Amino acid sequence: MNKIITISREFGSGGKEVGKRLADELEIAYYDEEIITKLAKETGMSEEYIQNISEKGIYPQSFNFGRTFTRFGVLQSNQTEILVKQQEIIKKIAEKGNCIIVGRGADVILRDYNTLNIFVYSDMESKINRCKMKAPENENLSEKELEKKIVQVDKNRKKFHELISNLEWGDKKNYHLCINTAGLEIKEIIPALTEYIREWFRRKI
Amino acid sequence: MNKIITISREFGSGGKEVGKRLADELEIAYYDEEIITKLAKETGMSEEYIQNISEKGIYPQSFNFGRTFTRFGVLQSNQTEILVKQQEIIKKIAEKGNCIIVGRGADVILRDYNTLNIFVYSDMESKINRCKMKAPENENLSEKELEKKIVQVDKNRKKFHELISNLEWGDKKNYHLCINTAGLEIKEIIPALTEYIREWFRRKI
Repeated sequence: MNKIITISREFGSGGKEVGKRLADELEIAYYDEEIITKLAKETGMSEEYIQNISEKGIYPQSFNFGRTFTRFGVLQSNQTEILVKQQEIIKKIAEKGNCIIVGRGADVILRDYNTLNIFVYSDMESKINRCKMKAPENENLSEKELEKKIVQVDKNRKKFHELISNLEWGDKKNYHLCINTAGLEIKEIIPALTEYIREWFRRKI
Repeated sequence: MNKIITISREFGSGGKEVGKRLADELEIAYYDEEIITKLAKETGMSEEYIQNISEKGIYPQSFNFGRTFTRFGVLQSNQTEILVKQQEIIKKIAEKGNCIIVGRGADVILRDYNTLNIFVYSDMESKINRCKMKAPENENLSEKELEKKIVQVDKNRKKFHELISNLEWGDKKNYHLCINTAGLEIKEIIPALTEYIREWFRRKI
């Protein structure tokens, strides 16, 4: 079975950087936006629209035919299609080879694949600072606005996670390791994480 | 400032073994029962009585003079004395030199000491197995009884923690690293943890 590492992360905690650096270090594939690109290709929808689903909420603005009832309400048929396709794509990726998948509910979608699930989090101050550092040039949000954005994105990630599973996003019992990046440079924790991951897969597979 | 690592742990998760092995590896002092022994010496109370306070609950059986009101009710004066003395002892230990302290609320008692706080947890099945493996010869609890014991001990640890602080025991945001030991041999994760700890203190101190 392939060695699959899923990384779930709070917005602004540096989870994406953790994933990228680990993939480099372990010399395995890395997936994040790639999944969105594939989804766009397979569904004919725009990347932006698909991206918005997990970041801005998957909840319908209006009713139309072909809707699906979930415990959160009603999904539009194209939103359901995205969910189904995303699951297919993530499973295909997992069957292709060793890899790291950031976000996209991979930890629950791949529940049967014996994945190593890591959660990356931080305190609000560090997340705001990280967001400021990483902001695109044309984004000029105040700290208050950034905090609001961080809270909202994580709220939507949580909702998205609970839409596709019964497991609570961010609850440590659903992960093998939870790492707080406050006060740390991501690159400094990569050697320890690499060692941990290697040992984990020596045991498990 | 000394390098202090606190380890909080679910009962049966192997947190004590993590602490002992890390202390050996890092060649620093280790404190767990030693704190109880010191407390007994300084208060003149029995070690067993003191031990019971965090494992079996600190709540009063009866009223007497000199009681202290807390948000959980009323503490007997000797229980208050133990709490105060325990804080003093833990602070003395922290000022003595680099060390690892397991349990005893050291993570919150030493809030101002820039400690590295690790939480060790596991799933119920692994905790029951570990308890069976580590049980004293004269203890013959069924799996159901073990589970009940595990739940009860952790419930008391949680209450004890919330008695001395406003921080929730086991909530990942109060720790720097949370590690799930399910399916792992403790000794196998020591190299990664050692690397992580060394890096953490290189940054922090």
